[in-house]
Amino acid sequence: MLDPAPMEDVLAYIDGHRARFVEELREWVRIPAISSDPSHRADVLKNAQHLMAQLEAIGMEDVQLWPTGPGGTGHPAVFAELRSSPDRPTLLVYGHHDVQPVDPLEAWVSPPFDPVIREGRMWGRGVVDDKGQVHIHVKAIESFLRTRGKLPVNLKLIVEGEEEIGSANLDALLAEKSKELAADFVCVSDTAMFGRGIPSLCVGLRGMAYLEVHVTGPSIDLHSGSFGGGIANPVNVLARLIARLHDDDGRVQVPGFYDKVVALTKAEREEIHGLPFDEPAWLASTGAPAAAGEKGYTTLERVWTRPALDCNGIVGGFHGDGSKTIIPSKASAKISCRLVPDQEPEEIAQQLGAFFQRHAPPGVKVKVDYLHGGRPYLAPTDHPVFEVAKRAFAKAFGRPTVFIREGGSIPFVRTIADRTGKPCLLMGFGQPDENSHAPNEWLDLENYHLGIKSAAYLYDELSRI
Amino acid sequence: MLDPAPMEDVLAYIDGHRARFVEELREWVRIPAISSDPSHRADVLKNAQHLMAQLEAIGMEDVQLWPTGPGGTGHPAVFAELRSSPDRPTLLVYGHHDVQPVDPLEAWVSPPFDPVIREGRMWGRGVVDDKGQVHIHVKAIESFLRTRGKLPVNLKLIVEGEEEIGSANLDALLAEKSKELAADFVCVSDTAMFGRGIPSLCVGLRGMAYLEVHVTGPSIDLHSGSFGGGIANPVNVLARLIARLHDDDGRVQVPGFYDKVVALTKAEREEIHGLPFDEPAWLASTGAPAAAGEKGYTTLERVWTRPALDCNGIVGGFHGDGSKTIIPSKASAKISCRLVPDQEPEEIAQQLGAFFQRHAPPGVKVKVDYLHGGRPYLAPTDHPVFEVAKRAFAKAFGRPTVFIREGGSIPFVRTIADRTGKPCLLMGFGQPDENSHAPNEWLDLENYHLGIKSAAYLYDELSRI
Repeated sequence: MLDPAPMEDVLAYIDGHRARFVEELREWVRIPAISSDPSHRADVLKNAQHLMAQLEAIGMEDVQLWPTGPGGTGHPAVFAELRSSPDRPTLLVYGHHDVQPVDPLEAWVSPPFDPVIREGRMWGRGVVDDKGQVHIHVKAIESFLRTRGKLPVNLKLIVEGEEEIGSANLDALLAEKSKELAADFVCVSDTAMFGRGIPSLCVGLRGMAYLEVHVTGPSIDLHSGSFGGGIANPVNVLARLIARLHDDDGRVQVPGFYDKVVALTKAEREEIHGLPFDEPAWLASTGAPAAAGEKGYTTLERVWTRPALDCNGIVGGFHGDGSKTIIPSKASAKISCRLVPDQEPEEIAQQLGAFFQRHAPPGVKVKVDYLHGGRPYLAPTDHPVFEVAKRAFAKAFGRPTVFIREGGSIPFVRTIADRTGKPCLLMGFGQPDENSHAPNEWLDLENYHLGIKSAAYLYDELSRI
Repeated sequence: MLDPAPMEDVLAYIDGHRARFVEELREWVRIPAISSDPSHRADVLKNAQHLMAQLEAIGMEDVQLWPTGPGGTGHPAVFAELRSSPDRPTLLVYGHHDVQPVDPLEAWVSPPFDPVIREGRMWGRGVVDDKGQVHIHVKAIESFLRTRGKLPVNLKLIVEGEEEIGSANLDALLAEKSKELAADFVCVSDTAMFGRGIPSLCVGLRGMAYLEVHVTGPSIDLHSGSFGGGIANPVNVLARLIARLHDDDGRVQVPGFYDKVVALTKAEREEIHGLPFDEPAWLASTGAPAAAGEKGYTTLERVWTRPALDCNGIVGGFHGDGSKTIIPSKASAKISCRLVPDQEPEEIAQQLGAFFQRHAPPGVKVKVDYLHGGRPYLAPTDHPVFEVAKRAFAKAFGRPTVFIREGGSIPFVRTIADRTGKPCLLMGFGQPDENSHAPNEWLDLENYHLGIKSAAYLYDELSRI
């Protein structure tokens, strides 16, 4: 393939500073920026400031801390810009600097916030979701600036601090900063590749509706001997409500749940079936004894293109060592629905709330809280920028780029797509089994390295679109 | 009613030392003898030793600490004896000195192990279940010995330390100590009266089978976006297994569960319906919005005479503040069945274990642990000792004694009845809403006082049987 603008200088810089880049990422990962935990609020701020210092050090202009939420009650986002030339296109790069909680802490082989390198991987909370992927862009920018003094495109960077808690304040921020964030294309690096060494552009994301269901029966825990059989048990009731959510074929039973689901076309199914999906390896990576799910769909179809309803947690009554003979006063469960086009989070949340109330027996009170949600996304893959991105990615990895989807949710993507109408490139460098929301999260350091090159190629390719 | 042996001296002593008796009980309640918590092992021993010191102080002979379990690994029981005369009958009094756990600690109005007096009640863990009721006998014995120098009957006292964890080592102890424990009658004070001021002899107890069910899916928590819909979720699976345990009429669906249940006779039902049961007050005491249970039975029938299956607790996945989007690796529930004659605990546990395995989907592994059990009990109420006990109890409270049942389990009763064939008097002084297994356990101090008199009358009446 003819390469009109040789990249040797930039690539050599990336190769030459590989070890330092890794060390700098390790430093950043040490900050425990758990956005869901109020006790880590100061850490999330410190985390943002650490990123700002890095951006200023490599020569980004207008590095800004953007408070979010009413009265700045949210976690701050970081914004930075580098103007190259008015006749070059502008790329907006999105990432997030906050991370998931770490519990159960005892399941980590090495401490989540003291990252170590082993087996060619960096292990720690946030190494790939999403600090490592933000860092890929920071280092690609640095590599251009240190070798050529400027970028081939105009570049804006927005790194939010609330992605792991549903980006509740993001929409307001995007509205407020629409001028600052104006761009021709958007690139999001917060997804996984199809497999090691397979450059992959993600063209679909599932949305989300996250709820918490509380069942309350007696006002205190009762003696299960004295009262057992005469009082509705909140744990049993909650179990029955949860069980009722699916039929035996794994189909969600909430009325209206599937009404807006757009069925896969024959072409879409064939595209998915054409991917080199190693289901036994996928299953082995989970440790589960068998795959499961909605009847009539393959595993990839289920996790990419079908809605899913999962309990993320449940608690009620006594669960310590030994036994306690009580009817618990209350029980609760956290439930998340993964949504596909054209399901709407608020609508799904309302359907679930009504379902729980309708099936609650008279012996309990049920309360359903809608915690947060995000709409699903499908990319406009007929836009030429997707061919450009495919080419850039393929150059770095030396292999053709595939279109994939992702079962997870990135509220920003849907929101920015709605707000700007601009194409959004989901160029992710993670791996499917990277434990991004579990203990022992890891980043493949070869992917990280080739990711920096991919980003550099992307900036270069986009300059000629 | 003619009273052949005036009791004025003993009753006057009981009235005269009322305040001191209460203070002595408070002292004992301060010891946190939680038998289910290994970290309180030393406290359970200290608790037994405290009781021994009290028994020695009032003049009991042969006060002994009886180790239990293989190599003394169980919690110790306390035994004491007082021989009066070879031609008088021998009464064996049973109680337990161990107590329930206290969590949730934050729900206690006053500290569980720093008992306070308010509203004519003592509040603390173990005040009524069962330290207060053991103390009633200790003080009745003291009252005879201090006024007359001897008891009207031969008396043996066995106070075990493992009742709240299923009395696993009790059967072996009873076998080993059959000679020491030989008696003509048995009295157990560990039940509740039908209501305040209503002397009640409990003639039936439910048994128990206590299990823990563990469901394991993936080997670690998975990202619910990446894997949701493709992997069986252990929380959802556990909920479905629990839901399947009952039908919509509240009937247990485990095959064989009801096979050995003896149906109530018409006379038994009429006896129960004749009791002054204030269901609205009973319901109000629970705080639940409505009663519930097996179709075709009244509330009293349900909690006294029908088997029940309750989840005592459930846990799995994330249940902290905020949200976490995972498919949990595992979930577990504690489940207790309350059994009625002639259900057998081991048989029921096996049926449940088989049920869970049969209905476990291939995407998970299910493990069922049988923690402990106890057989149900029905008293031989045609034996004349029941009339004697009714009379003694009625004298203290000035009101006729009723026969009641109790939904709870006291493994000792069934075991001692099987081992000795002797009648067992369940003379309890608790109240139905005393929170014995919940926060804010309380003891009615008037009942405690009249309880001491009832025990004294019982010893006196039994001397002439």
